[in-house]
Amino acid sequence: MSNTFGKIFSLTSFGESHGRGVGGIIDGCPAGIELDIPFIQNELNRRKPGQSNLTTSRDEADAVEFFSGVFDGKTTGTPIAFSIWNAKQRSGDYDSMKELYRPSHADYTYQLKYGIRDKRGGGRSSARETIARVVTGSIAKLALKQLGIKVTAYTSQVGPFQLDKDYSAYDFNEIEQNPVRCPDPEMAGKMAALITEVKTKGDTIGGVVTCVIKGVPVGLGEPVFYKLHATLGAAMLSINAVKGFEYGSGFDVNHLGSAVNDVFYSKNGEIRTRSNNSGGIQGGISNGEDIYFRVAFKPVATILKNQHTVDTSGNEIEFKAHGRHDPCVLPRAVPVVEAMAAIVLLDMYLLSKTNKLSQ
Amino acid sequence: MSNTFGKIFSLTSFGESHGRGVGGIIDGCPAGIELDIPFIQNELNRRKPGQSNLTTSRDEADAVEFFSGVFDGKTTGTPIAFSIWNAKQRSGDYDSMKELYRPSHADYTYQLKYGIRDKRGGGRSSARETIARVVTGSIAKLALKQLGIKVTAYTSQVGPFQLDKDYSAYDFNEIEQNPVRCPDPEMAGKMAALITEVKTKGDTIGGVVTCVIKGVPVGLGEPVFYKLHATLGAAMLSINAVKGFEYGSGFDVNHLGSAVNDVFYSKNGEIRTRSNNSGGIQGGISNGEDIYFRVAFKPVATILKNQHTVDTSGNEIEFKAHGRHDPCVLPRAVPVVEAMAAIVLLDMYLLSKTNKLSQ
Amino acid sequence: MSNTFGKIFSLTSFGESHGRGVGGIIDGCPAGIELDIPFIQNELNRRKPGQSNLTTSRDEADAVEFFSGVFDGKTTGTPIAFSIWNAKQRSGDYDSMKELYRPSHADYTYQLKYGIRDKRGGGRSSARETIARVVTGSIAKLALKQLGIKVTAYTSQVGPFQLDKDYSAYDFNEIEQNPVRCPDPEMAGKMAALITEVKTKGDTIGGVVTCVIKGVPVGLGEPVFYKLHATLGAAMLSINAVKGFEYGSGFDVNHLGSAVNDVFYSKNGEIRTRSNNSGGIQGGISNGEDIYFRVAFKPVATILKNQHTVDTSGNEIEFKAHGRHDPCVLPRAVPVVEAMAAIVLLDMYLLSKTNKLSQ
Amino acid sequence: MSNTFGKIFSLTSFGESHGRGVGGIIDGCPAGIELDIPFIQNELNRRKPGQSNLTTSRDEADAVEFFSGVFDGKTTGTPIAFSIWNAKQRSGDYDSMKELYRPSHADYTYQLKYGIRDKRGGGRSSARETIARVVTGSIAKLALKQLGIKVTAYTSQVGPFQLDKDYSAYDFNEIEQNPVRCPDPEMAGKMAALITEVKTKGDTIGGVVTCVIKGVPVGLGEPVFYKLHATLGAAMLSINAVKGFEYGSGFDVNHLGSAVNDVFYSKNGEIRTRSNNSGGIQGGISNGEDIYFRVAFKPVATILKNQHTVDTSGNEIEFKAHGRHDPCVLPRAVPVVEAMAAIVLLDMYLLSKTNKLSQ
Repeated sequence: MSNTFGKIFSLTSFGESHGRGVGGIIDGCPAGIELDIPFIQNELNRRKPGQSNLTTSRDEADAVEFFSGVFDGKTTGTPIAFSIWNAKQRSGDYDSMKELYRPSHADYTYQLKYGIRDKRGGGRSSARETIARVVTGSIAKLALKQLGIKVTAYTSQVGPFQLDKDYSAYDFNEIEQNPVRCPDPEMAGKMAALITEVKTKGDTIGGVVTCVIKGVPVGLGEPVFYKLHATLGAAMLSINAVKGFEYGSGFDVNHLGSAVNDVFYSKNGEIRTRSNNSGGIQGGISNGEDIYFRVAFKPVATILKNQHTVDTSGNEIEFKAHGRHDPCVLPRAVPVVEAMAAIVLLDMYLLSKTNKLSQ
Repeated sequence: MSNTFGKIFSLTSFGESHGRGVGGIIDGCPAGIELDIPFIQNELNRRKPGQSNLTTSRDEADAVEFFSGVFDGKTTGTPIAFSIWNAKQRSGDYDSMKELYRPSHADYTYQLKYGIRDKRGGGRSSARETIARVVTGSIAKLALKQLGIKVTAYTSQVGPFQLDKDYSAYDFNEIEQNPVRCPDPEMAGKMAALITEVKTKGDTIGGVVTCVIKGVPVGLGEPVFYKLHATLGAAMLSINAVKGFEYGSGFDVNHLGSAVNDVFYSKNGEIRTRSNNSGGIQGGISNGEDIYFRVAFKPVATILKNQHTVDTSGNEIEFKAHGRHDPCVLPRAVPVVEAMAAIVLLDMYLLSKTNKLSQ
Repeated sequence: MSNTFGKIFSLTSFGESHGRGVGGIIDGCPAGIELDIPFIQNELNRRKPGQSNLTTSRDEADAVEFFSGVFDGKTTGTPIAFSIWNAKQRSGDYDSMKELYRPSHADYTYQLKYGIRDKRGGGRSSARETIARVVTGSIAKLALKQLGIKVTAYTSQVGPFQLDKDYSAYDFNEIEQNPVRCPDPEMAGKMAALITEVKTKGDTIGGVVTCVIKGVPVGLGEPVFYKLHATLGAAMLSINAVKGFEYGSGFDVNHLGSAVNDVFYSKNGEIRTRSNNSGGIQGGISNGEDIYFRVAFKPVATILKNQHTVDTSGNEIEFKAHGRHDPCVLPRAVPVVEAMAAIVLLDMYLLSKTNKLSQ
Repeated sequence: MSNTFGKIFSLTSFGESHGRGVGGIIDGCPAGIELDIPFIQNELNRRKPGQSNLTTSRDEADAVEFFSGVFDGKTTGTPIAFSIWNAKQRSGDYDSMKELYRPSHADYTYQLKYGIRDKRGGGRSSARETIARVVTGSIAKLALKQLGIKVTAYTSQVGPFQLDKDYSAYDFNEIEQNPVRCPDPEMAGKMAALITEVKTKGDTIGGVVTCVIKGVPVGLGEPVFYKLHATLGAAMLSINAVKGFEYGSGFDVNHLGSAVNDVFYSKNGEIRTRSNNSGGIQGGISNGEDIYFRVAFKPVATILKNQHTVDTSGNEIEFKAHGRHDPCVLPRAVPVVEAMAAIVLLDMYLLSKTNKLSQ
């Protein structure tokens, strides 16, 4: 069941870039959640290509159709199946690449693993698969909203341009005000200029998405193997092009324990920590502070430049990709990161209801 | 089943730091693996406390006892249960800390999640739980050895001291020659000196473990949600004190796609890549190149210095931990990282056998 | 993940009787299986209503559409999504029943479990859900065929009419020659007459399906909790209207051990048993003999007669169902039983590939 | 994970008949359950051999030892590991049978599945494995007691002697008053005499256990694949020697729908059914009525008579088993059936807590 994510609230996804569509089945969704279709569609629009000149110019409708699990506008507790049909199938763009292994793509590994692969575009390894995650995540968000939990992600680095302050220094309302989805307007401008420059060259660039989750109650996360951060990490690392995950103090390891420890204190009868190097998670369980983490994305592998590679017979060749591709995946990755985080949080919330006999 | 890791080859672990023991049940172990007990015990010895003056001075025997699943020295395909009994239970060391929440420990989160917690030491959140991982990982290594797969980890950073070369620049035979488990003897000396200094102050320091896996066939990893790196990441992030995971180019995102893409070429009829920024994994599936990743560890939370915190009634108090603790978890974390990597690799190998009807 | 069945080869199903359609996602299907669409459609036709005057007169097209996981006519190892769209939605038939709980239906339990239910027909509890099982089972059959495994089911009892001989006494070619799917033509005639009589009265009748699986290699079944017969039993009991499952000697318990034990002997160098009271399964693992089991179906709960019940406010009322319904589910249940058996067998075959390191 | 049963409240079991012991790890046990050790031991005593002259004369202590997951006498939400050490290992009894395949045992199938097997006694396929189920079931019962749910099983048939009334006709207090565990004292006497006679002949006899569950709230069971009865069936069929499962009207299929349907009515504001042919389960979900089902057990395969078989080289031979064995498994199977039912009910209760966002 490698295409299923989540233990209670779970997504089983399907679809290839140039097949009939991509979609999935959401199982274990609590009954009675009002399905806010415009909200779901808006989340999809944040992910879809063609939304700005920083992304690929492919203009896909990406309208979601629900097949089941909803009655009178509410979830019924039964499986919610959905699809986003692939509208424009310009697989001709890929015809010339059917018989070669594109560098840093999954063509070669899929072919050897399965002995067969869908040669149209990225097939199953296409980032188009993340559509199913965004739909599912948007429904998770609708449930989390009732619990007072809010997930917000933003672009914090593109190439060399990196936000240097803690997330609390930024106004999250700025995020959707620019096409890069960076809360610092000045930095957003620099990032946008860089992406445009890279695009002109037919090249690509990577970066980092930061995600912050507020309003999480104490007690989410299932030790020892499904610690909250381990599950968030697994979720993020399963997104196309992700190369790294860190939460709280992360890879910034050059500090003494006495400097990093988060001291508890009492605030209006509530137990809180003075610092938050733990990133809101201790022993794998949420401690009521903000959860925050960072996700590294590599540059998109498809570049519009000559590259060397081998064909499927093993001959070395030179080729150049055509078509429309993202110069930088970061802006469109933001809603995907949020979606996966929302799925994890809702699943962990539901699991936590089983920790005691009555609650 | 939050204490179970793995889909086919799986570990279900149990145990608290000051209970009867820690151990687990390994299910799905292929039949016919020769159980090399001295090897398994040696792996445990690499993890155990008291092995050098850089680790805690607790000297625990940590001898493993197997209960089932083995006949005539070989695995039978039935569950392998084992325990490492807790020999020295100086829980008195913790008596004074029973009624307070230690900073950056899991006392508070366990208490609120479950409404009850084992107050002796870290209870279930103790790093002693990783013993079960090492036993399981050592059996996985015995199986992987037959497949030609080798997992090697080492300390690559302690505080500010960081190896600056690629893993291929180091002689892995050096790793076990120094108590830090760093393949660069000179750097190992600096790291050891720092750890000793930190220990003298009653403080702690974090760092990074690098892990390299050689001999992996093409085709391991189950897209889309159980990509090989996502599963490795989940495994690593589930280890106590881990704050980050990156593989291949990881967080080093300031490069263009044209510079990062791994170009395929043909070498003696085999398809290889000229660079390996993909870290041996493309589309979540191993491509036959070396797999490598880095794991960040925070400083141990138990320091032997005065700290502020709150007691279980919410009153702010000051306390100082006593007992014997690691000033730096890195040297002992190396075998744990290897163990979890071996578990993932064997599991993914077994899963890959189901990708085709016959193979 | 209560709508997912299977560990490696798995079906996640969706759909309600009067929604957009029913379907599912098949995950873990081995790559390279030729998708024989006419065969799959024929299996669906064996299940569909309106195929004879013994079944409901609803005439549904039940044509399957595949969305993903297939390339050049073969499975690719990626998820196979499919749907059978609901063509004729005469939910008006049910309008009068929206606000009452039909006896022996799931209206009441769904309502209380979820606090909401799809009031159009049986919603998720409709036997229309079994369509997804038949599609998945037909693909499993295509894979099993390559392994020499064949699954055959037939109607062995309707009301008082019961086949009194062992399955080996019947010619399986007769099964599809009559609308009851009974291999004994004379008995089939009696059963058909009874069903017609019951139908005329607006009533319904139950019965038993027998299933035989030939060509199963020794070694399928995963002890201790996923014994082959336990998994077959779970599969059968999950089918609508099933009330019992027995394999081998089953509930026929009035025999001594000395009479029931299956004696081993050697036949052309192969180890076989002289009798087969074990039903082809010993210790939960197939032993190479024919597997056979029986599945009891209750009469369909929808009858076209006056019945007492309560409405959703708890008032006692009298009502009479209208519409088109099956007087006897047995003939259409035969392909569903086969489908679930095929899913279990293929899954167990794939799992058995992981029992040893190499095989 | 074939040795794990349950989705939230789960048992992973281990152990062979003549190894170090049998036991398991219970994961997902709600925190705060008081561990009533005398009750648990009493449940084990109901299962243990040597309790009467109707069972094997092996007198095993079967005392349970808990390793983890309990603090101050209460469950903590962490894994509960336990073992019952094998005290008397008279594996010499089996020495002569090491190199042959006993009829209707699992020797042959284990050998071929895994290429190796524990030749001491039944190894993993021994009914001694059910000890772990009884321990886990007894803890489940402690939790269910708080919810008002009570599980009771009894012997309803031994060979030809069969209770002919509905469970409600019997006084459950009689069950533990006789060694057969039959609530009808007169019938118990006949059954006991038969078992004694069969034992004298060195033969064995099978029978049926009936189980009744009272106090189940409406809403337990997870459609479509984990219907309450499907999961109960899977649980029962996984017990050694079980050949059949039926609930409610079961295999008694010769009735019209109009006679079998359970009519709803209103009783003091509560919705109830006048009959209970549904066995307390509709659409796979509990409806608040008593749940009841029947489980068929074959005669024990080990008989103390000459039998033909083949040795491990395929030669036909004659042999006679020695040692102490049960002439009839029924009396000792009663607590095992109860245990598995309790595990299923608790698991389904915990799962049902996730059906709605708040409850």
